[in-house]
Amino acid sequence: MSLDLKELLVTDIPTQNGGFPADHTVAVLGGTGPQGRGLARRFAQAGLKIVIGSRSAERAEAAAAELAEATGGSVTGADNLAAAKAGDVALVAVPWDGHGELLTSLAAALAGKVVVDCVNPLGFDKQGAYALPVEEGSAAQQAAAILADSTVVGAFHNVSAVLLDDPEVESVDTDVLVLGDDRAATDLVQALASTIPGVRGVYGGRLRNAHQVEALTANLISINRRHKAHAGVRITDI
Amino acid sequence: MSLDLKELLVTDIPTQNGGFPADHTVAVLGGTGPQGRGLARRFAQAGLKIVIGSRSAERAEAAAAELAEATGGSVTGADNLAAAKAGDVALVAVPWDGHGELLTSLAAALAGKVVVDCVNPLGFDKQGAYALPVEEGSAAQQAAAILADSTVVGAFHNVSAVLLDDPEVESVDTDVLVLGDDRAATDLVQALASTIPGVRGVYGGRLRNAHQVEALTANLISINRRHKAHAGVRITDI
Repeated sequence: MSLDLKELLVTDIPTQNGGFPADHTVAVLGGTGPQGRGLARRFAQAGLKIVIGSRSAERAEAAAAELAEATGGSVTGADNLAAAKAGDVALVAVPWDGHGELLTSLAAALAGKVVVDCVNPLGFDKQGAYALPVEEGSAAQQAAAILADSTVVGAFHNVSAVLLDDPEVESVDTDVLVLGDDRAATDLVQALASTIPGVRGVYGGRLRNAHQVEALTANLISINRRHKAHAGVRITDI
Repeated sequence: MSLDLKELLVTDIPTQNGGFPADHTVAVLGGTGPQGRGLARRFAQAGLKIVIGSRSAERAEAAAAELAEATGGSVTGADNLAAAKAGDVALVAVPWDGHGELLTSLAAALAGKVVVDCVNPLGFDKQGAYALPVEEGSAAQQAAAILADSTVVGAFHNVSAVLLDDPEVESVDTDVLVLGDDRAATDLVQALASTIPGVRGVYGGRLRNAHQVEALTANLISINRRHKAHAGVRITDI
C-alpha cells in the first residue's frame, strides 16, 4: 500500500470541526440518493468542500447546485469516476445492488485514499427489512477486498437520511459507529462524522465487525415503523 | 392525603413494574454466570420471584442464597431442568457453547412458555471479539428452531453484566432491544427489561433480525477496550 496516512494527517493545514482537515475535498459517491445527499448537505453546511458523484454527471451537477444554494457551501457535481478522482476522502453511499461493480470500476481512482463505505445490504418484504448475506462478510469488507490500495472504513450506516436531508433539523441525535483497521483513518472519519451537529463519531471496532452495524439498520427500520420515528443509536458510558 | 401507590399496585392490580405480572416466576438458566447472575439480581431487586438454574443445583442454590440475602428478594436455586419447570418465563443466559444441547434437553419443560434468549455467539482472538456464524442465523433463531412449542424472544444481549451485577450501580444507562414475532411475548419482555432501573425495553424487530443485535456485543467490547467503559446502547427519537 502506497498510502501514508500519517503524512496526510500530520500537517500544518488548518483543521476545523474537531480535526477534519479544512482543505480536504469529500467525494460523496451516490450523492444524489437520500443518504448521500443528506450527508453532502451536512458536510457542506460544516464548510467542507464537497463533490457529489452520480452515474449521471447532469443529475450530480443539478443536486450540487441545489445544495450549494441551500447551504452556501462549496458543492460541485460530477460522474462517480470524476468525483472519486477529485476527492481526498470518498464516501460510498450507493445502493447495495451494483456496489461491487461500481467499486471495481473506481479502484484506480480511489487508490491511496480513505474510502468510507456507508452501504447497508438489506432486503425488504412484507415483514419489513432484513440483512442480506454478503460473501465477504459485509459491504465494508467487500469494499476492502476490491479496493486493495485504499484504506476502507465503515461508517454512517445507522443515521437517518430523512433527518440529514431536512434543513429544518438543526441537530441529529445519534452517534456514528466508525469501523476500520487503521487508527488514523478511523480517527479521520470520526472527525468527519462529528462535523454534523449533534453527531458524535465513535470508534466501533474492526472492519470484521462491520456486518452487524450495517444490518442493525433493519432493526432501526422496525423501530421506525412501530414508533413512526427516525431512530438513531447512542452509545452510553463513553 | 397521599395514596400508597406501592400498596395499591401490589394488592389491587396483578401487575407491577410497567406491566410484568407480579406473580410470575422468572427462571434464569445459566444464572450463576455473570450475565444471568446480574439479571437475576436486578429482577430480584424489582420484587420478582426468581429461580436460578445451573448445571449444578448446589451452585445455583449457593448463588440464590447470596442474591436473596443481598436483595431481600425471593430467589431460589435448582438445576436447569427444575428451574425451567418452575419458571413461568425462562431466560437463557448460558454460554453459546452447549446452547443447542441444553435447550434440546429442556424443550418439554419449556413448552408453552416465553423463553428469552440472551446469548451472544462470539469468538475471541488477539484482535478482540467477533461474531460467530450460526447455522440458524442467530442464537435466538436456534432456540426457536429447537423449542417449537415455546415462544422465543431475544433480549438482554447488549447490557453490561458488570453493571448489572454491581450493587453499587443504582441505574443502568441502556435500552434493551427485544426481538420476536409474537407481540404479547415481546411486550412482556419489554416490561421485564423495564423493571431494571434506568433500562428501557424497546421492540427491536422480528427474530430474523436478532443476529446483528447479538453480534453488536462484539462492537461494544471494542468500545469498552478503547474507552475503559461499560458501553450500552440507547435508541434515539423514541
